[in-house]
Amino acid sequence: MIRTIEAIIGEINKVKNIIVVGHIMPDGDDISSVLSLTMGLEKLNKNVRAVIDDNIPGYLEEFPFVKDKIKSYDCINKFPAELIISVDASSPDRIGRVYEHFKYARSIVIDHHATNTYFGNINWVDTYGATAQMILRLNKMLEIEYDKDISTVNLLGIATDTGFFRYSNTDAAVFEDVAWLVGKGGDIGLISNMILENKPLENLKLYKDFLDVMKLEKDNTIVYSHITLDMLSKYNILPKDAPSFVGELRAIKGVEVAITFLEAEKNVYHVSMRSKNWFDVSKVAVHFGGGGHPRAAGFSKETHDLEKLEKEVIETIKILMESYK
Amino acid sequence: MIRTIEAIIGEINKVKNIIVVGHIMPDGDDISSVLSLTMGLEKLNKNVRAVIDDNIPGYLEEFPFVKDKIKSYDCINKFPAELIISVDASSPDRIGRVYEHFKYARSIVIDHHATNTYFGNINWVDTYGATAQMILRLNKMLEIEYDKDISTVNLLGIATDTGFFRYSNTDAAVFEDVAWLVGKGGDIGLISNMILENKPLENLKLYKDFLDVMKLEKDNTIVYSHITLDMLSKYNILPKDAPSFVGELRAIKGVEVAITFLEAEKNVYHVSMRSKNWFDVSKVAVHFGGGGHPRAAGFSKETHDLEKLEKEVIETIKILMESYK
Repeated sequence: MIRTIEAIIGEINKVKNIIVVGHIMPDGDDISSVLSLTMGLEKLNKNVRAVIDDNIPGYLEEFPFVKDKIKSYDCINKFPAELIISVDASSPDRIGRVYEHFKYARSIVIDHHATNTYFGNINWVDTYGATAQMILRLNKMLEIEYDKDISTVNLLGIATDTGFFRYSNTDAAVFEDVAWLVGKGGDIGLISNMILENKPLENLKLYKDFLDVMKLEKDNTIVYSHITLDMLSKYNILPKDAPSFVGELRAIKGVEVAITFLEAEKNVYHVSMRSKNWFDVSKVAVHFGGGGHPRAAGFSKETHDLEKLEKEVIETIKILMESYK
Repeated sequence: MIRTIEAIIGEINKVKNIIVVGHIMPDGDDISSVLSLTMGLEKLNKNVRAVIDDNIPGYLEEFPFVKDKIKSYDCINKFPAELIISVDASSPDRIGRVYEHFKYARSIVIDHHATNTYFGNINWVDTYGATAQMILRLNKMLEIEYDKDISTVNLLGIATDTGFFRYSNTDAAVFEDVAWLVGKGGDIGLISNMILENKPLENLKLYKDFLDVMKLEKDNTIVYSHITLDMLSKYNILPKDAPSFVGELRAIKGVEVAITFLEAEKNVYHVSMRSKNWFDVSKVAVHFGGGGHPRAAGFSKETHDLEKLEKEVIETIKILMESYK
């Protein structure tokens, strides 16, 4: 991949005006990748516009430099971009209206999703735990000096996309990168505080109600629960801000499969599934028209009858569980 | 500290029969330190007895090698120990009856607690995030070859004593050690699963009741709740297995101080306090005859009137909060 990075550096060296674009429904890795690339390019005296064509969720909006540096779509109006760098987005529809500008500039895609469609002129797609790790490598090759600020911002994506070093994508390279960034002043405590210790009180109340309707099946190896629009409105939580709590269900001793049914619109349920050790939830997701990974998958379904949907999903899981025997 | 480690290696080289002892009320770092030192010494063909003079909590008992290698006090009966190595214990009372054997053998103390009383013939006390990091350094100097097993066992203590890389003791050295151990096959996923994803269902039910009696003060910057013996007995949870949930309270947005009152014996409350950014809870603990760190402290109190105790603690915190202005 060194030659691809060198090609990217060649493109960057040729130009002055660069757009860095993240994806819609941005997460920690996307915000982190946009910010650390933008801050790196600024240290090279480039004119950079960092843009995300969507709202930034509240818990990320307060993160250092986010409000300062990441702007909405309008900021690239009349900006004479010579180069657009898309980070953490797997396909053009993920970057919203910014894709229109690909017609008028060279484009680079940097992403860690295996499903990437290679929509740039140069595409660097690799299997890192976080896109932020790829930006770290690029910045190092660009000889960007790392201070406390850029280190903290770069750490954010590595921490969040590995579930704070708990997911199976947490390999030795992740810890090496984190060690290096923490050594440069990266503030892992600040990130933990802002991401993990910043839960709205209403979420706790919702969690209580969620536990009240929790059900267990098959000797407590399957656990599921739901969040309806009624439950959300009781605490004035918008569906887009609803936590899924599926990780909390999976954390129960003896549970192999955890499922959360979230009513995202009237009679439309987002179904999130997680497994712990051996069950492949992506097969269940595919059966219901969704997708995902063996340990984390999901689908959406329109129905007037949540109870029936729950029953169908649990039955499907039970049948698949039998097939492992 | 190299010379101290060299002196320790000198003692180890001189002998064949070694006791490795952990502390009472063992935690992940203690178990990890005992196991990784024991497995290292065994690779040097020493006769080792690993002993902890207390019960091992259920969530740690199931960890690989714990049942195989760590025995109760009786195992050192008539064992002709020439050397005793105490790990992760700050004072003799922390190792139970094993301390009696210090009369008959050379002794080494390896510990990361600043409050260590230096009760061995050789004492290596340093400010690492985990004692397991010190064992890693010792094992490396002993040229122990690290495989998947010993790496996983050594990782356990580093993961648990840093709150899975979230506490303020998580420095670059922690991540470097973890990167090295994961590189050697250390299974961070297994540790996460066994420690974090192994919560008894009853704890979730208790948590619901705990949230039901939760109270907030001073514009929601102080949050507190309690667990009584009655609440525990409802779910057949023994006080020694009771979770404190104080971390969950601190995780609420806007909260600076979180307090949990746990009735450990009839009318005796263990009070755990945590703060997020600036308030020094150790001052409150000292006021009530306890101790701890600025962000994590506690004390115990006998009382028939929990409500009065809660009120006193909250008032004390409020007064101290005013003094910051």
